[in-house]
Amino acid sequence: MVLPLASASATQNALVALFVVLLAAKIGEEICRRIDQPPILGEILAGVLIGPSVLDLVQPDEVLEVFSELGVVFLLFMVGLETKLDDMKAVGRTALNVGIMGVVVPLLGGFALGQALGESTEVSLFIGAALMATSAGITSAVLMSLGVGSTRPARTILGAAVVDDVLALILLSVIVGISEDGGVSISSVAVLLLGAVVFIGVVAVVGSKALARYPKALTRPAFSTTGMLPAVLLCLGLAALAGEIGLAAIIGAFLAGMIVAETKGHTDVEAQIRPLYAFFPPFFFAFIGMEVDLSALGSTDALLLLAGLTVLAVLTKLMGAWIGGHGMVARERMIVAVGMVPRGEVGIIVAGIGSSAGVVDDELFAVIVGMAVLTTLITPPVLRRLTT
Amino acid sequence: MVLPLASASATQNALVALFVVLLAAKIGEEICRRIDQPPILGEILAGVLIGPSVLDLVQPDEVLEVFSELGVVFLLFMVGLETKLDDMKAVGRTALNVGIMGVVVPLLGGFALGQALGESTEVSLFIGAALMATSAGITSAVLMSLGVGSTRPARTILGAAVVDDVLALILLSVIVGISEDGGVSISSVAVLLLGAVVFIGVVAVVGSKALARYPKALTRPAFSTTGMLPAVLLCLGLAALAGEIGLAAIIGAFLAGMIVAETKGHTDVEAQIRPLYAFFPPFFFAFIGMEVDLSALGSTDALLLLAGLTVLAVLTKLMGAWIGGHGMVARERMIVAVGMVPRGEVGIIVAGIGSSAGVVDDELFAVIVGMAVLTTLITPPVLRRLTT
Repeated sequence: MVLPLASASATQNALVALFVVLLAAKIGEEICRRIDQPPILGEILAGVLIGPSVLDLVQPDEVLEVFSELGVVFLLFMVGLETKLDDMKAVGRTALNVGIMGVVVPLLGGFALGQALGESTEVSLFIGAALMATSAGITSAVLMSLGVGSTRPARTILGAAVVDDVLALILLSVIVGISEDGGVSISSVAVLLLGAVVFIGVVAVVGSKALARYPKALTRPAFSTTGMLPAVLLCLGLAALAGEIGLAAIIGAFLAGMIVAETKGHTDVEAQIRPLYAFFPPFFFAFIGMEVDLSALGSTDALLLLAGLTVLAVLTKLMGAWIGGHGMVARERMIVAVGMVPRGEVGIIVAGIGSSAGVVDDELFAVIVGMAVLTTLITPPVLRRLTT
Repeated sequence: MVLPLASASATQNALVALFVVLLAAKIGEEICRRIDQPPILGEILAGVLIGPSVLDLVQPDEVLEVFSELGVVFLLFMVGLETKLDDMKAVGRTALNVGIMGVVVPLLGGFALGQALGESTEVSLFIGAALMATSAGITSAVLMSLGVGSTRPARTILGAAVVDDVLALILLSVIVGISEDGGVSISSVAVLLLGAVVFIGVVAVVGSKALARYPKALTRPAFSTTGMLPAVLLCLGLAALAGEIGLAAIIGAFLAGMIVAETKGHTDVEAQIRPLYAFFPPFFFAFIGMEVDLSALGSTDALLLLAGLTVLAVLTKLMGAWIGGHGMVARERMIVAVGMVPRGEVGIIVAGIGSSAGVVDDELFAVIVGMAVLTTLITPPVLRRLTT
């Protein structure tokens, strides 16, 4: 059998880390269930606890990041499985408006805050960028755990999150272009936009037609012991492809789920993918918590900035999404606006890009991560109150 | 949603690699099924094809190694789930003999070959060490795919593989001690042996009694959406613990499966873990293939050495296991002997340790990896002929 001495120690460390993260996340989830709170709160807080900020049991390294990414990929695949293409079309125009306004208002608000604090144009742009994009993963998980994942507001949120992502991708590349070269070419922006639109259109239309024509493609017995893997391969493949053209991998996973949902065998796929859905997503939520750096939030200034940025993040997203939701009934419009609030991993990724570009310093990085986690922690209880 | 530009590119690359490996492994498996060959052959050869030796699409990096490790962990957990403690006790003495003789004869044979070729004592010891330990993962997968995973010879092979691992662990640490310091302390060997025996004893006896007393521990509804995760946590936890005390992680996973098999809910656990069992193990088999370095096997000398070492590996293991299987009926004795032949990942790990210790050069490393893969490729068709 195996002899893991020196050469296998990196793998052994990863195995221990995976066990500790999964155990902590599940204990956190269990505690939150018992005190009647949304489970993902417990998973995120467990991540804060075992991460470098508190107990320092586990470092958020590359292996855990991959598990975290697969977590959000399988999460959005599951969400896609509960979403029909026609349902998305029905909310299309509203979702487009919510997505656009939900990006523009926070971006302008964040930029204005930076300017008011006397920051440079670059830093102000990054603050705006960190506020602009919603984390569909967080909101989806909450809506699914409340059993309302396929309601009209939930679909509007998902549609808006896709629009949000495409827009945010383009704006972020513009901002990175400005901060690096002092400018950005219109052609590269056009290529991004075109790639995004073509990818989503081709996958949604051609993909669902192809699966409708060859319905057995996902359940061929020879291809796996469970019949589940072809759907998993489709999910991973479209996620990887989305990432390759510069989109979020989860957009590919969501589209994969959505076209599988069009097939007859989709309930089988759903039952068989459930264990992967139970295994991977806790890594995503715990990883967000592990990235919190409490030590960089020690000063009064940092805490004030965190409080201000979080309030701004909530208000601007509520306002933008509310404006975009024109035409919906008030209660659904409110659910959509609240559902767009969590920044989750997105704010963290933007802060990471700004940090490696040398624009965002350590304190601002910690503040942005704190804001992302706080918007994520605030949302689930409010959403639950609105939907039950 | 997400904006994966620069900072997320390592994760994106990992996502693409995971997709390519899983797709290639499944296509290889499918081809082998169609031409009526054991599926794992296709997965290993797919790994050779996409690895650095041929197409160079994917590098065997740390992330893939972790997925490979989880693959063999879930594989042995599944094997454990089909194994009862009493069944193992029934084959105990034979398994012990097979394990001991199956390690000693190849170790002596490999050492003798090294000496005959004029190699140093250190190099000769590493050649012996690379030949000594069986890959329970490979054999288990083949036996399970043949539907004979819980027969008497299969249980004997598994028991022998556990003995084999404990022994090989101790001998390898002695050999590493000799090659590094010219000696080894008896106390450190005693600590290893004691740790191994205590771990296996405590887990097998106390663990199964504890689960028998609290049978609901694995199926508590509050603890997960599927009821599967407590068993997965037990598997990961015991695997990590086994690794920490210097044993193979898969020993912990196998014991975890075995004590879960004692509980009433084990068929539920088995059904729910099946998708993880479908997802992870292909990475294990493909990873073995990816580690083959065909370019280092270009010379006639290297090919001759590879042929000689492979023949020696097969004959010495057959002989040792056959001797150890004294008392079994001839056909089962032969199945056990053949089942012990694959070296798989084990030979590769030993070669890796020797390589990082500077004892094993690039050519010998490639030859040992080649031997490990060849013994693995040879075994399944023979086992199938013997069992059907």
